[in-house]
Amino acid sequence: MMNFEEFEEKTISRKEIFKGHIIDVVLDEVRLPNGETSTRELVFHPGAVAVIPVTADNKLIMVKQFRKPMEKVLLEIPAGKIDPGEQDHPKETAERELEEETGYRANKFTFVTSMYVSPGFADELLHIYYAEELEKIPNPRPQDDDEILELYTLTLDEAKAEIASGLICDAKTIFAVQYWELQQLKRLLKEDNR
Amino acid sequence: MMNFEEFEEKTISRKEIFKGHIIDVVLDEVRLPNGETSTRELVFHPGAVAVIPVTADNKLIMVKQFRKPMEKVLLEIPAGKIDPGEQDHPKETAERELEEETGYRANKFTFVTSMYVSPGFADELLHIYYAEELEKIPNPRPQDDDEILELYTLTLDEAKAEIASGLICDAKTIFAVQYWELQQLKRLLKEDNR
Repeated sequence: MMNFEEFEEKTISRKEIFKGHIIDVVLDEVRLPNGETSTRELVFHPGAVAVIPVTADNKLIMVKQFRKPMEKVLLEIPAGKIDPGEQDHPKETAERELEEETGYRANKFTFVTSMYVSPGFADELLHIYYAEELEKIPNPRPQDDDEILELYTLTLDEAKAEIASGLICDAKTIFAVQYWELQQLKRLLKEDNR
Repeated sequence: MMNFEEFEEKTISRKEIFKGHIIDVVLDEVRLPNGETSTRELVFHPGAVAVIPVTADNKLIMVKQFRKPMEKVLLEIPAGKIDPGEQDHPKETAERELEEETGYRANKFTFVTSMYVSPGFADELLHIYYAEELEKIPNPRPQDDDEILELYTLTLDEAKAEIASGLICDAKTIFAVQYWELQQLKRLLKEDNR
């Protein structure tokens, strides 16, 4: 088993390319463990949260929205980036995003996992939560000014059909549908073994 | 149900920020459907492939490698970015990456899904394949010069423990372990129902 030092790429120099509202971009020159040099194009991102909100009648609440990088409308689970100062409280961000994007509050909010979405070039860490025992909020916080969203509720079969159709096509949502299916199968297997 | 026009963000102007070897960065000024303007920070990426390679004795082959954005060593399924000219043949890229990173060839190579890894700011599309009936290649193509990798084979329980430990912490690999578990549960349920 190799040590950390046998993997580590040491930064020789860093060039700041872009400081944006959401991402920062830098270009690093690095020294590889074998002594060679290389460059690394890196994107720094404040992180994000996503919620898998499942209703009492076992439907997944999702939002349709336009995504500029692909110039396409995607059907996704509710999600949003972490604002400055929220880094240590991703659960609160997730609860806020669920309220803003769907108008629901969850009485049961369970951490699922955290994942780096594209570790080759970006440090974005996405925290995912499972939300149950939902209730409609009478006067929910409004959506962000620059977000146009449309709400949907889907059964597992409908969600799987939309993955096949390509309308559901992002990593967190495909993961979420699979996670949801896995929970249901585990429950079935438990009942079978009784 | 809203139409595409009710979602679309029209580009008013685009500023090119960075043209790299792996990513391009642009800053768009957009007109929202409600008439307001906003900016979009966008990263364009050529896309990537990942492989879920499972051995005859039901173990997952993974690679340990240093990831500069996080300054950490991660345990991941084999993966790599799509080179220019390979866009229309992601399966070939996946076969090449499997060979280069692990020294294995798969006699059964099945498409699993394609997913945008971070649709809010990046257009990176990741294609995932399931690889079975593996055989060691006598003289495999060498790894990329600037990649230092270490090979591992893990059982499902070991892989789940490494997700819990945080060594496995990227989206494609957490997805892959979950996919693998789901396939095994589906097989179990089928046997139960016989």
